[in-house]
Amino acid sequence: MTLDPVLARIDANLDAATERLLDLLRIPSISTDPAYKADCDTAADWLVEDLKSIGFEASKRPTPGHPMVVAHSGGDGPRILFYGHYDVQPVDPLDLWDNNPFEPQIQDTAKGKVIRGRGSSDDKGQLMTFVEACRAWTKIHGTLPANITIFFEGEEESGSPSLTPFMRENAAELTADIALICDTGLYGEHTPAIITQLRGLLGDEITITGPNKDLHSGMYGGLAMNPARVLAKIIASLHDEDGRITVPNFYDGVPELSNELAAAWDDLKFAEKDFLGAVGLSIPAGEKGRRPLEMIWSRPTCEVNGMTAGYTGDGFKTVLPSKASAKISFRLVGMQDPFKIREDFRKMVEAMIPADCSVSFKDHGAGPAGQMSTSDPAFAKAREALTDEFEKTAAYVGCGGSIPIAGYFKSILNMDAMLIGFGKDDDQIHSPNEKYDLSSFHKGTRSWARILHALTK
Amino acid sequence: MTLDPVLARIDANLDAATERLLDLLRIPSISTDPAYKADCDTAADWLVEDLKSIGFEASKRPTPGHPMVVAHSGGDGPRILFYGHYDVQPVDPLDLWDNNPFEPQIQDTAKGKVIRGRGSSDDKGQLMTFVEACRAWTKIHGTLPANITIFFEGEEESGSPSLTPFMRENAAELTADIALICDTGLYGEHTPAIITQLRGLLGDEITITGPNKDLHSGMYGGLAMNPARVLAKIIASLHDEDGRITVPNFYDGVPELSNELAAAWDDLKFAEKDFLGAVGLSIPAGEKGRRPLEMIWSRPTCEVNGMTAGYTGDGFKTVLPSKASAKISFRLVGMQDPFKIREDFRKMVEAMIPADCSVSFKDHGAGPAGQMSTSDPAFAKAREALTDEFEKTAAYVGCGGSIPIAGYFKSILNMDAMLIGFGKDDDQIHSPNEKYDLSSFHKGTRSWARILHALTK
Repeated sequence: MTLDPVLARIDANLDAATERLLDLLRIPSISTDPAYKADCDTAADWLVEDLKSIGFEASKRPTPGHPMVVAHSGGDGPRILFYGHYDVQPVDPLDLWDNNPFEPQIQDTAKGKVIRGRGSSDDKGQLMTFVEACRAWTKIHGTLPANITIFFEGEEESGSPSLTPFMRENAAELTADIALICDTGLYGEHTPAIITQLRGLLGDEITITGPNKDLHSGMYGGLAMNPARVLAKIIASLHDEDGRITVPNFYDGVPELSNELAAAWDDLKFAEKDFLGAVGLSIPAGEKGRRPLEMIWSRPTCEVNGMTAGYTGDGFKTVLPSKASAKISFRLVGMQDPFKIREDFRKMVEAMIPADCSVSFKDHGAGPAGQMSTSDPAFAKAREALTDEFEKTAAYVGCGGSIPIAGYFKSILNMDAMLIGFGKDDDQIHSPNEKYDLSSFHKGTRSWARILHALTK
Repeated sequence: MTLDPVLARIDANLDAATERLLDLLRIPSISTDPAYKADCDTAADWLVEDLKSIGFEASKRPTPGHPMVVAHSGGDGPRILFYGHYDVQPVDPLDLWDNNPFEPQIQDTAKGKVIRGRGSSDDKGQLMTFVEACRAWTKIHGTLPANITIFFEGEEESGSPSLTPFMRENAAELTADIALICDTGLYGEHTPAIITQLRGLLGDEITITGPNKDLHSGMYGGLAMNPARVLAKIIASLHDEDGRITVPNFYDGVPELSNELAAAWDDLKFAEKDFLGAVGLSIPAGEKGRRPLEMIWSRPTCEVNGMTAGYTGDGFKTVLPSKASAKISFRLVGMQDPFKIREDFRKMVEAMIPADCSVSFKDHGAGPAGQMSTSDPAFAKAREALTDEFEKTAAYVGCGGSIPIAGYFKSILNMDAMLIGFGKDDDQIHSPNEKYDLSSFHKGTRSWARILHALTK
């Protein structure tokens, strides 16, 4: 089957494809907030209907949380699984958005047209690149060049609690020769990239209780323990002066960067000043003596994602708070064991709780880092297809984010995964005013058409 | 004029007096929250009408904030000013209240009847003890034994921004021979007390900004500075290992406890285990080597009253926050200079802000500590009157809270102030389920009748 007419059809039908994406973006499928449960369901229904319209046998599959969408093309050729997620991040602070996050718009910017709205880049815009590539193949050739299974989840932004049970229960149905994952970005503005390593993620919430109720800071201040001080001390102790994390045994399983990879990454000429400058910063804040790219791709981190105690409204309240809490996450690399680290972290915290306070923990998920085996010939084929589309050699890169699905495909379904995406650093995912370049959507769709061709010709 | 019939009238009319207090408690006069501005006004009107009904020339006096209430009895005898405040603390967290905080109730408890509702003890119940004492004097004798001015403010719980300008503009009208302030408590359950020293208060809010927007902690974590970590480090550094505050020059002007006062306080046999036990704590958490009573009465403190950064809702959001902020207050003693301390505190914080972050401050008020001169014979007279009412020797005590009005009466109007109140440690002021013992209300009213008699006979 020939590629060129497929690419031509994608070009000719870009407007209609964009309209379909806008439809999907209008559904506020925020998975972490129970108020949007019905909307997550609606997004799954929308995808099932769209996949049916291009010949997939598609269904919404219940889980204890938000549903999965699974669709099969059937047919001959290699078995390919494609993964994306239809859920999106919360939108607060809402007042920092220039438009309603769920009334997406096509906007002209100095860098070209963008699709603005929550989920445009993470991940609805990205997953639709693959769906649109399939649509074009089907319209031109009446069939797809491979036996494709599409697998969308709706809990990626809330820790994927149902993912591994579902994969285990449906292992035979989901197993393919290779998995394709579209939830990542280009390297810089124009260089296509295949992720070969991903950081893992461990999320934990600690709540420290001191007095059994909020107290008057005049009556009790000086005599009563303030849990906000205890929490601050714990958070302040999590890094040493060199930016290293102090949790015992934390660096067990963290590999040194190989000379080969170090050289390849140096060749990428990462412009950390621009990367940080875009968000109002200028100084790499990670471990001393590490390359900026190492800091985000191959070194583990510990971040406070949220923290609260006492009175946080307008004005002032002289309260000595009963409770103080923080949401803390670790990005993991190499062979770091998230479960061991959670245990060591909790022990460390417990050891810092004074006699008059207590601490409780809430588990917010744990997944190990991922390392791809690039010796699979599919990597070279996909790299060539991306190079053809972008007219620039595709790079093998790391990723600071955590897409545990890649590791699960390996450990549960025993298949390799290629992470290929078209987002850009300035897409503002997880932030107000998220966008996806129209060129990302267009070239992304063309790229998948090329990759399907490359993997099956 | 005789005292006994006045006391008898107070006893006979307790129910009606209580009903009046409940009326006042129903008005949600929360001064710190602009949403309750009209309610503050309503509370002032209520007081003006009530004072007029017992013969005062009373008026509501506008300020840039909430109004003052000023009332004059006229007449002969010594000039006495009485101060209280009609505003109340916010009520959150509302779900911890057993009844609506503004639907006050008389409840039976193991320790006797209590008046339950926001402001019952702080300070509406207390100010009404004086009003009811005046009412009884007037009803029995047709007049008051002194030339009394009543002065109520409506901004005590929100930093009293209008207080000193108003006092300066109306100095002649407000100046008396002595001031009486009713915003404090008994010592323990049954010992009447006159406060002879009060801690000052300095409130400041710090906001640290790192990146110019919330970031994805995977994409940026490790490379971008997290302001929550910076804030935690600052808060953790405010106390040393011995519980001493590390702000430079902070202890300038902090006096050592005199041997005489130390002995008097030791005689009070402060039961710190009970005091802390009532709020779920057991270990005095202040400076090492200090008596528990010193920690709350005569040592300065630094407390985090509120703290927030990043995502604090349900679930988890892997955000690297743009901002982190904390409301911090200092309780001051002796001759500590709040303005100098604010300057030193801000310099210390600024010195800890890394190059990539910025900090801003918000002033939440500053007032020095207060020290009364007990050589004024009024102190001995009031002490005797309280001793008669409670049949227990009244104590001269310290107070951990901050009632800057006492200092202002001295510095602006050049008059001494006696702080006498009837609250109890378990009144839960500033907390859910605030209450005022009906016996506090009753014996408080009788005490003021006695004190008016003692000061004027």
